[in-house]
Amino acid sequence: MTTVAYFISLLGKDNVLEDPEALAIYGTDWTRRYPPNASLVLRPKTAQEVSKILAYCNEHKLSVVPSGGRTGLAGGAVALDGEIVVSVERMNQILEVNIQEMWICAQAGVPLAALQDAAKKAGLFYPMDLGSKGSCQLGGNLATNAGGLKFIRYGGMRNHVLGIEMVLADGRILDMNASLQKDNCGYDLKQLFIGSEGTLGIITQGKIRLMKKPQPYFVTLIAVDTFSHLLSVLALCRKSTHTLTAFEFFTDAAYQHVKTCFPHLGGVFSDPHPFYGLIEVEVASHTQGEHPLFRLIEEAFSCGILADAVFAENAEQFSRFWSMRENITESLARTGRVHKNDLTLPLGSLEAFMKSVSALPKGGIEVIYFGHLGDGNIHINYIGPANGDVEAFRRDVRVLEKKVFECIAHYRGSISAEHGIGCIKREDLHYSRSELEIEIMRKIKAVLDPTGILNPGKIF
Amino acid sequence: MTTVAYFISLLGKDNVLEDPEALAIYGTDWTRRYPPNASLVLRPKTAQEVSKILAYCNEHKLSVVPSGGRTGLAGGAVALDGEIVVSVERMNQILEVNIQEMWICAQAGVPLAALQDAAKKAGLFYPMDLGSKGSCQLGGNLATNAGGLKFIRYGGMRNHVLGIEMVLADGRILDMNASLQKDNCGYDLKQLFIGSEGTLGIITQGKIRLMKKPQPYFVTLIAVDTFSHLLSVLALCRKSTHTLTAFEFFTDAAYQHVKTCFPHLGGVFSDPHPFYGLIEVEVASHTQGEHPLFRLIEEAFSCGILADAVFAENAEQFSRFWSMRENITESLARTGRVHKNDLTLPLGSLEAFMKSVSALPKGGIEVIYFGHLGDGNIHINYIGPANGDVEAFRRDVRVLEKKVFECIAHYRGSISAEHGIGCIKREDLHYSRSELEIEIMRKIKAVLDPTGILNPGKIF
Repeated sequence: MTTVAYFISLLGKDNVLEDPEALAIYGTDWTRRYPPNASLVLRPKTAQEVSKILAYCNEHKLSVVPSGGRTGLAGGAVALDGEIVVSVERMNQILEVNIQEMWICAQAGVPLAALQDAAKKAGLFYPMDLGSKGSCQLGGNLATNAGGLKFIRYGGMRNHVLGIEMVLADGRILDMNASLQKDNCGYDLKQLFIGSEGTLGIITQGKIRLMKKPQPYFVTLIAVDTFSHLLSVLALCRKSTHTLTAFEFFTDAAYQHVKTCFPHLGGVFSDPHPFYGLIEVEVASHTQGEHPLFRLIEEAFSCGILADAVFAENAEQFSRFWSMRENITESLARTGRVHKNDLTLPLGSLEAFMKSVSALPKGGIEVIYFGHLGDGNIHINYIGPANGDVEAFRRDVRVLEKKVFECIAHYRGSISAEHGIGCIKREDLHYSRSELEIEIMRKIKAVLDPTGILNPGKIF
Repeated sequence: MTTVAYFISLLGKDNVLEDPEALAIYGTDWTRRYPPNASLVLRPKTAQEVSKILAYCNEHKLSVVPSGGRTGLAGGAVALDGEIVVSVERMNQILEVNIQEMWICAQAGVPLAALQDAAKKAGLFYPMDLGSKGSCQLGGNLATNAGGLKFIRYGGMRNHVLGIEMVLADGRILDMNASLQKDNCGYDLKQLFIGSEGTLGIITQGKIRLMKKPQPYFVTLIAVDTFSHLLSVLALCRKSTHTLTAFEFFTDAAYQHVKTCFPHLGGVFSDPHPFYGLIEVEVASHTQGEHPLFRLIEEAFSCGILADAVFAENAEQFSRFWSMRENITESLARTGRVHKNDLTLPLGSLEAFMKSVSALPKGGIEVIYFGHLGDGNIHINYIGPANGDVEAFRRDVRVLEKKVFECIAHYRGSISAEHGIGCIKREDLHYSRSELEIEIMRKIKAVLDPTGILNPGKIF
């Protein structure tokens, strides 16, 4: 029997795709940087089917790319070299929402938004949120250890996982899907698979901790004259009795791009200032008639660290302030010449890092910062000259990016805060990981995938 | 040069101990179940010294037992078979408390209490607490993934770690001691070492996240007539706007033992009830004059799930209520015939589990439960007949314990919630881990410690 015939006998004709359009769609992700080159797309429905697929591929030395919502930004789900794509999109069953034990158990292909909705219906809260929630899936969120919009409050995906079910490269099913809060029985193997970007196995199921519904959120937008003032305001927020749920920042340069694309988002402050911050808190109880952030802002003014501040007094202002921050990506994308890195640095090194970067020769490339300051997570965006050659921009930006990564290495930052390494940052892993770390990763990969069929060319 | 001469040349004479008393002290832990049998005790001061020790031991195939405060309860730090004990007690420097980035960095031998004090001095809070805080050390807390008294609020050790520094079996130093909140660059190797009980390397340094100082705590003690009522009260607490910091439970049988040993702790409730609960919350703000738990307790009464409740109205009552819970271990120990297991179960299976256990033949052994109900973590205590033979009790209790572990396996619970496996539960690991999981653990062990010198006979 041929490979295709075997898979058709296993999955049915509808779930073995060979047409060029399907190969193109399933062979790539949101990075769009690599021409897709998949040989086949398989769409199993159960862990048992995934098990049989991998057992066959392992025996026949056929490489596999695990595939979820394909919203990744690091090329982790790209089929570069004739691999078989195994899409878990049909594994889309929510298996249980347990209110008493506060968790949700679902197959890997359930979209994030569906998990959020199911938790909400049960009167609980799913602690992960991402812009791509309509498309991205549980398996991908786990395989990439997604961070997301609520990181400062809830932490990343790893913090929420009670259990996972995996299929190993040889097809064996590794069931680590218990639902225990405390469990110290040997090495915590599931930790190894969370964030392994499909190189150690295919995640087929996960059990995720749910939270109680959050209290109401309140937002204020601030303007400051120096970056260190921004850090001082953050320090004040950390001491507040309210729970900090976001501390975002953006530069005036970023805001100018937003105003160009979305003019209705201008005019919040009477004068421009070099840095802006968006502060969001979750408030259990507060004095009626006084904005819960009023005292904190008053204190910040009296310390001389604030230039200006505006409170969101209603839902319209709340969403308007958030739009100012959230539309940065779109505004920069519209320049048509943008490349970005997702970096983390120790909070105390951020300013020095930005100074080092500003001293680098940039040859016409504009550098724009914004990000989740509370996590030390900054997005650095490289904007090329509007009419310049795209290929030349790519070359120039790569030269600049490498120098930026050298700065990151110097301050012991991360070249990938949350997007992962995929194939895009493979060559750059050494900036954030030592030779010894990479050696151990490779040895663990060899233990779990000795034939090397799983997502080849990703991470290392 | 002999082995001893080499180590004296490396560490100085005072840090190479051979006298029988030192061998006995450093060769055992709090389990006291195994006769210590260490051949040598080494007390390095730096990671470089640990590196040289392990490189030598690896080359000469000498087994090593890493040693911290030796307060473990699973025999993880026992030298059973002539091993060399490497104590990190002289590695007791707090290296930095970073207020802006909210972390503390310390060598592995710093006692937990010293870390708590240093955080407090900086106006911050160290999120781990254990009864053994005066003796247990950072390295041991990390190597065993300690849970502790604040687990329901903050989670276990794993949740607090920003970075660690390790020495591998071959002496190479693995520096993963950055201080980033977000860092998705390949496999998160440090997760593998946290909870590995000294079998994969010796932890020499750690960087632990600090929290803001907690708000005031409030406590109430409740009495209920059925276990399911206890779970219903827990569900109410989970919905409260206050932050739950403890939900402990104990049976009337446990309380009777406490009253026998500590008569002044009796008389809280006018009548006895089958189950008691201790609820502690952290309260950001509340109406003066009303106990913050008043409304919750009122609601519980109106639902008919409470038999009685008493609020701690002052510091004396607060500590008295906690004493009732905390003195259970001591009260049971005084019977002279006690054996205990530290188990977790899914919350929804706890009652069925206890019913299964109550149906087991016990041959004169009394079974007493108490524990951290909020985490599904229960301590099951086996009390032997007061005048019975100790050896017979040990035999009988082992038979019973195995049947209890079979129940645990049935409900997919954990035979070790937080104490770890060590050498005590080695033979029982299969009750909570599959053959496949154990196979992968062994293979990872072989990658990182191919000679097998690190803590032999522990975990598997």
